[in-house]
Amino acid sequence: MSDFTENLRPCQPDGASTLMLERSQSSLPVEELANYLLNQDGFLDRQKIILPVLEKEALLSKTGQQNLSRPDRFKLGLARAKLLRRLADQHGWSNEDYRIAQYLVDEMSPFALQMDMFLTTVRQQASDEQQKQWMPLIDSWKIIGAYAQTELGHGSNVRGLELQAKWDPRTKEFILHSPTLTASKWWNGSLGRTANYAIVVAQLLLPKRSPASQSQETEYISYGPHPFMVQVRDLETHQPLQGIVIGDIGPKYGYMSMDNGYMLFDNFRVPHSTLLARYASVDPDTGAYAKPKEPAVVYGSLTATRARIVSHARLVLARAITVAVRYSVIRRQFPDRDSSGGPELQILDYPTVQIRILPLVATTFALHYAGAAMQQVYDSARENIEQRQDFSDLAHMHSMSSGLKSLCTTLAADGIEVCRRALGGHGFGGGSGLVQLNNDYLSKPTVEGDNWMITQQVALHAIKKMAAAVKSINKSGGDKTEIRYREYLREKQVSSGGQRYYDVLTSDSAIAEAFERRAISLSILVSAFHEALQRDTTECKISPVTSVILRDLYRLFAFYTMDNEAYEFLNTEAVSQEQLQALPDKIQTLMERIRPHAVSIVDAWMIPDYLLDSALGRYDGRVYEDLFHRAHRLNPLNRITFNVNYQDEEITKGTGDNGLSILAKL
Amino acid sequence: MSDFTENLRPCQPDGASTLMLERSQSSLPVEELANYLLNQDGFLDRQKIILPVLEKEALLSKTGQQNLSRPDRFKLGLARAKLLRRLADQHGWSNEDYRIAQYLVDEMSPFALQMDMFLTTVRQQASDEQQKQWMPLIDSWKIIGAYAQTELGHGSNVRGLELQAKWDPRTKEFILHSPTLTASKWWNGSLGRTANYAIVVAQLLLPKRSPASQSQETEYISYGPHPFMVQVRDLETHQPLQGIVIGDIGPKYGYMSMDNGYMLFDNFRVPHSTLLARYASVDPDTGAYAKPKEPAVVYGSLTATRARIVSHARLVLARAITVAVRYSVIRRQFPDRDSSGGPELQILDYPTVQIRILPLVATTFALHYAGAAMQQVYDSARENIEQRQDFSDLAHMHSMSSGLKSLCTTLAADGIEVCRRALGGHGFGGGSGLVQLNNDYLSKPTVEGDNWMITQQVALHAIKKMAAAVKSINKSGGDKTEIRYREYLREKQVSSGGQRYYDVLTSDSAIAEAFERRAISLSILVSAFHEALQRDTTECKISPVTSVILRDLYRLFAFYTMDNEAYEFLNTEAVSQEQLQALPDKIQTLMERIRPHAVSIVDAWMIPDYLLDSALGRYDGRVYEDLFHRAHRLNPLNRITFNVNYQDEEITKGTGDNGLSILAKL
Repeated sequence: MSDFTENLRPCQPDGASTLMLERSQSSLPVEELANYLLNQDGFLDRQKIILPVLEKEALLSKTGQQNLSRPDRFKLGLARAKLLRRLADQHGWSNEDYRIAQYLVDEMSPFALQMDMFLTTVRQQASDEQQKQWMPLIDSWKIIGAYAQTELGHGSNVRGLELQAKWDPRTKEFILHSPTLTASKWWNGSLGRTANYAIVVAQLLLPKRSPASQSQETEYISYGPHPFMVQVRDLETHQPLQGIVIGDIGPKYGYMSMDNGYMLFDNFRVPHSTLLARYASVDPDTGAYAKPKEPAVVYGSLTATRARIVSHARLVLARAITVAVRYSVIRRQFPDRDSSGGPELQILDYPTVQIRILPLVATTFALHYAGAAMQQVYDSARENIEQRQDFSDLAHMHSMSSGLKSLCTTLAADGIEVCRRALGGHGFGGGSGLVQLNNDYLSKPTVEGDNWMITQQVALHAIKKMAAAVKSINKSGGDKTEIRYREYLREKQVSSGGQRYYDVLTSDSAIAEAFERRAISLSILVSAFHEALQRDTTECKISPVTSVILRDLYRLFAFYTMDNEAYEFLNTEAVSQEQLQALPDKIQTLMERIRPHAVSIVDAWMIPDYLLDSALGRYDGRVYEDLFHRAHRLNPLNRITFNVNYQDEEITKGTGDNGLSILAKL
Repeated sequence: MSDFTENLRPCQPDGASTLMLERSQSSLPVEELANYLLNQDGFLDRQKIILPVLEKEALLSKTGQQNLSRPDRFKLGLARAKLLRRLADQHGWSNEDYRIAQYLVDEMSPFALQMDMFLTTVRQQASDEQQKQWMPLIDSWKIIGAYAQTELGHGSNVRGLELQAKWDPRTKEFILHSPTLTASKWWNGSLGRTANYAIVVAQLLLPKRSPASQSQETEYISYGPHPFMVQVRDLETHQPLQGIVIGDIGPKYGYMSMDNGYMLFDNFRVPHSTLLARYASVDPDTGAYAKPKEPAVVYGSLTATRARIVSHARLVLARAITVAVRYSVIRRQFPDRDSSGGPELQILDYPTVQIRILPLVATTFALHYAGAAMQQVYDSARENIEQRQDFSDLAHMHSMSSGLKSLCTTLAADGIEVCRRALGGHGFGGGSGLVQLNNDYLSKPTVEGDNWMITQQVALHAIKKMAAAVKSINKSGGDKTEIRYREYLREKQVSSGGQRYYDVLTSDSAIAEAFERRAISLSILVSAFHEALQRDTTECKISPVTSVILRDLYRLFAFYTMDNEAYEFLNTEAVSQEQLQALPDKIQTLMERIRPHAVSIVDAWMIPDYLLDSALGRYDGRVYEDLFHRAHRLNPLNRITFNVNYQDEEITKGTGDNGLSILAKL
């Protein structure tokens, strides 16, 4: 399509020269910061190796995928997922490598449960014998797994699940049965079209072992929800087994390439060996139930998934701010009133734009340090459980993972949307790179535990711990939450004497302490940021230049959050009204200090253009060239000429097609 | 597909019986309220006539549309839009009828500009002679119009548009030319594939009429952006005219059926008569420019569009709360701790769910009254302009429409999302009816003036008015903003003497007054609600039962907003800390009073199931039956069996297709 637009350039100064200038004006050592953030575990090195492998594959090109129908998008997703596994075999990728490949392709794989929830559950809850039988089949993807817990009528209230697993002592089988429509499994990833096995959570019902009952019908006692490993489709034909109805639940918000499924059972019999038996079991001969050692252990795989979600949140938000910062220095709007003739102002120089984007730049770092802190707690808790059968950290970990998952995903999801809106019209375009990200990521505050539900769980745990702390205020020991609360109470006693408020404007550690009072999760975010910054500066893991900029980001995150919740800080008497009123000026000053480094800071997150898939956010700044290229050369709609005469039924000009072909697709 | 699921029912009590019980327990006269809200202008009567016409048309069925590709979705949108116009002809629909049909079909029509921005601009800015020439062609849809103002590089800063319209005195033509890539028109609705004409906004450049210049090149003076009526496509072939490049900008957030376009000109000549000449003109003989009588008049059509957006916002939010309220009384979660054996609790009985949904139920009414107030101001301002050439209300109207558009669309857009998240997992499903609504509506805070930009315009206007009010504090007269500010200042003087705070907890009018201080737009929302409620109760337009419930809703809206912005109310010394601290309890009490009427209140918005297109929100409460029906019987993905063996390249089982067919669509 050669035409006069070939010779047109954007008005000057264009994006490429603008980004070059921005980069030359910041003293931030980008590569050093990038390595510090992302290469302590070799993430960056892996990304460098894997990216070119992916970029070579036509099937993994993101061009045009936004134009596909749901069925085609699923086909594409499946084709890509299979290709990724073949690439993994071919290049000998580790699990970590494979995860990075998935992250870069940025599409929820129909096999996503396989290496995640499904695998984790088998590892943690299957007996050694069961693992020996299943793991090779799982590793080789002969078994393709789903995790079927949530039902049409029950999500967060796991104890209310309706699916039954009745023990039949005669045949030594469990009978899986859905007594109602609401007992249908629902939302379960990979189940709809892909999985041939599923971990199925059902109410374990054992016959009442009473002296010869008069009644004809057996009475059952419920032992609550238990996980079963169930084959659901034929391994040859891939059809559901007799007695099982199964399918994809249909279009939804985001995740077009994932087959969230439904499943019902009609008196479907499974052998005794299907009950995951590491922590709970039924004696096949006597029908006696053996209690789990620690009931809370069933939360284990959920916690693992949450931990991963938290550490993923920073990279998601990093993508959004990369797009937002780069575009908002390139986009210009309104001339400077004080000077005449020059180019229009960069929109990131407007305080009203800064206040939306720069605090999110800071939030990305808060998420980073919180994720690292959480991973540490998780690793040590699992070590205690696995090596010492010590479950004492579990409640603390569950509560912490819940709270942080809730807060971090909400911060990231809302942050994406704030970035998108801050970009004006182009934020809504497919070239923003934020449309799919937003659609896909918006579910995160809900999946694996609704954030509102979780918050209530956290609150319950917090109240329990606070009660314990009140009783034991002068003692030591207990888990971390308890210790923290005790400190809070002691501080409270002190403050009623002398120091009532924290001096947040001059003391960095006081900022952290003020947040402790406010909310545990938020305070973890602020504390982890503060502690890591202190430690890494002292240990010279970051250069002085970087340290100064990170400190500004720390203060911006903290002050911005505090300003937003000023009323609560005031009501809890953590900060004085005078200091709260001084926050907006402080925030403005910090933003002015951070502004010159904004492009370099987002560069340090090293999000490749392939992942960004964004005309607005591309590294070289050729924003308008790319937007035009996508529209003028890649948009398939522009290859169709329409008949716009309303009196004709024909839709595509010259075809005579009167809309019947579309009607057939409805 | 007959199988054992045919005989399954949801667990009891099911949705149908729950909604019946809810409806029987409320004393609210639903029909009376519905007529009061929606039938004073005959809206409801129209809806009743038009709905069955639409429901009969297979092409207008919403089943399956979420599965279509972008190109197919556009074809469907065009086919529907043409059908709607044929139905309008056939049934003799008025413009209002046609608008209701579009509202019910709930899909942005490729002809959407025709009756809106395009028509309004011609009516307001074309000369009588021009209107005589164009209006018949526009009315019969021979001319299909777009409004091409925004460019790739310029949106809100209209003065910065790059497209040139140079006057050529020799040929008496304007030469439209895009000097850069960023001068490309961009985002313009209907332009991409549909329109054959467009109102094109370009910088008017007239040759400098200096005594015989020495230079070879003509010098030009810019007179700023002006609108031209330009034919852009051939009326027979529907191809762009020579010298114009035009197309659809590609996939974006929502609006799949709208062809937002781009367009560039290469020295494209248009006759003198194309310049819309009601308020500005160029003498064809002398090349002299005649000034518009009132430059601000160009904001006219934008204001009209904004007014419509505001009055639409209440119905959009009404849809979201209809879904949220109905589903949240049907959905049950966790047994009641205080009783045993009964059904689980309805989630709308949880305060954490109430606090998210019920204030939005109240907000819908606030939007309703604000829309009505705004329409009044708009009508009287236009009357003054058209009949008396009196432009004095224009600035006030522009400022008010900007502020209200900004606030109302943000409230509605955020409200949809809050509702969706409050529904847990099912809120993300295609059966929620909120997925497309959310995607489509999210752009509203940005289009027709970015809310952040608008807020700045409003602030500027407010500052000017405040300055005027300070000078004239003891005078009377001026426009409404000025009068309001003057009252504020007088109040301020009084309050420094005796009454410092408003007594918001006991006096309804004090609530309204407290909001006046807070922000003009928000206060319009609260004032309009308060005044209309007072008036309509006094005039017996609503029965005492309804009046009591509406008053509770008024207070809930006001207190909830006040509580959310408590810090500002405290800082401006409008409300005392003691009263602010009492708000959460007051809110809780109000929610308990409103809760029994929640289903009846949303019923009164009379959103038909056809429009809702929501399994969760349907009138009869058959939530789970419908969710399952959509998944099990309607989802096309379930007709495909996939090859999930990763070592095979084949995607659909048995076809041998190795993904090439998908690759071809990328």
